[in-house]
Amino acid sequence: MASTVLSFENPVFAAYATHACLVILKMFVVARYTSFIRCRVGVFTNPEDSKTFNKFFGTEAKFRLDNPDVERVRRLHLNDLENIPAFLAVSLLYVLTGPSAGVAQWHFRVFTAARCLHTVSYLAGAQPWRTLFFNAGMISTLSMVVQVLMAGPL
Amino acid sequence: MASTVLSFENPVFAAYATHACLVILKMFVVARYTSFIRCRVGVFTNPEDSKTFNKFFGTEAKFRLDNPDVERVRRLHLNDLENIPAFLAVSLLYVLTGPSAGVAQWHFRVFTAARCLHTVSYLAGAQPWRTLFFNAGMISTLSMVVQVLMAGPL
Amino acid sequence: MASTVLSFENPVFAAYATHACLVILKMFVVARYTSFIRCRVGVFTNPEDSKTFNKFFGTEAKFRLDNPDVERVRRLHLNDLENIPAFLAVSLLYVLTGPSAGVAQWHFRVFTAARCLHTVSYLAGAQPWRTLFFNAGMISTLSMVVQVLMAGPL
Repeated sequence: MASTVLSFENPVFAAYATHACLVILKMFVVARYTSFIRCRVGVFTNPEDSKTFNKFFGTEAKFRLDNPDVERVRRLHLNDLENIPAFLAVSLLYVLTGPSAGVAQWHFRVFTAARCLHTVSYLAGAQPWRTLFFNAGMISTLSMVVQVLMAGPL
Repeated sequence: MASTVLSFENPVFAAYATHACLVILKMFVVARYTSFIRCRVGVFTNPEDSKTFNKFFGTEAKFRLDNPDVERVRRLHLNDLENIPAFLAVSLLYVLTGPSAGVAQWHFRVFTAARCLHTVSYLAGAQPWRTLFFNAGMISTLSMVVQVLMAGPL
Repeated sequence: MASTVLSFENPVFAAYATHACLVILKMFVVARYTSFIRCRVGVFTNPEDSKTFNKFFGTEAKFRLDNPDVERVRRLHLNDLENIPAFLAVSLLYVLTGPSAGVAQWHFRVFTAARCLHTVSYLAGAQPWRTLFFNAGMISTLSMVVQVLMAGPL
């Protein structure tokens, strides 16, 4: 019955909801980590941020220095933004095509694991692992895109 | 009945739809404001943009100068991209967990108000207000993430 | 019946699913094109990337040079991120307002075509075409935003 597809009693939808939250939490951890790195190295992009930081901690925070550690986390964050919202949208449509629970869960698990490992290998500067995990996440999304397109009018 | 969860007769879903549109409109206002600031200060990132601008207005627009006003709006816009798509996805899943209308509406109101006030305090360079409103929006999203995770199989 | 709105038997939802996949595929093509341009001009933002590239191809790839071709694709990609997730969310809500199939399909077609033509004109540096296609996509999204807001409690 179509009316129960988007309910937590449907194991495919429940798996989607859980994995969607997990990747969003991962993205928020990266956002927090950016702030943490900024405070540790004392480099901020807004003059009011370095001023506030100096007032509270009495140190000499610098304004807008191109710090390689900060820039690395920001590039990682941007890479998340290029892949995670697309996953969130496509996999909801994929759930609505009524896939088998096992196949769907493996798509979600592969994507979530790939993005977490991509994050770790990006921060560690570990190539070619980063490219490998990036591609694993994208292949999982593309596989769902193909299945949604096949269910549609094209 | 599950079939009417995603209908505008369900006050929780209707509140979600309205607030989702409001934050997206806010994001579009920021996009427009970026163009407006670029034209006012006469700074563009693409050589063809400054050429077109000069042709129409007969002024001397500069190509790719790191203007602090333009960069501030661009950072604000990027911060929106890090938070608003996550909110749109999580709160749809949250609606499907069947929360009480009052609690859900306050989640959406807090997020929408926090992001609007975050925008204003970012443009005004007002710290620690910006961090406060950023955190208010993130806490509202995280509260929904936790409730979706609890409804799922984890 | 509300329960069949989000099913592939509803032509409006099927059109949404197809066009959502098409714009996401377009975004992924831009991501791949960025990698392709990076390899062709031999410019990378991470030191480990240029090292890996040099190991495999025996050439002299440079680390973090502000290459205008690479920066152009990155700005284009960022512009996608500002518009496509908003479209994905708003048009799902728009489908749930129960619009007529013809009107809805034209909204989706205009957006998808506008974003593809925006991509081409950004890469070609063709102004004022780029601004025209950017606005066409935004007007299609805004028209759906207005219709969702009118269906809501505001």
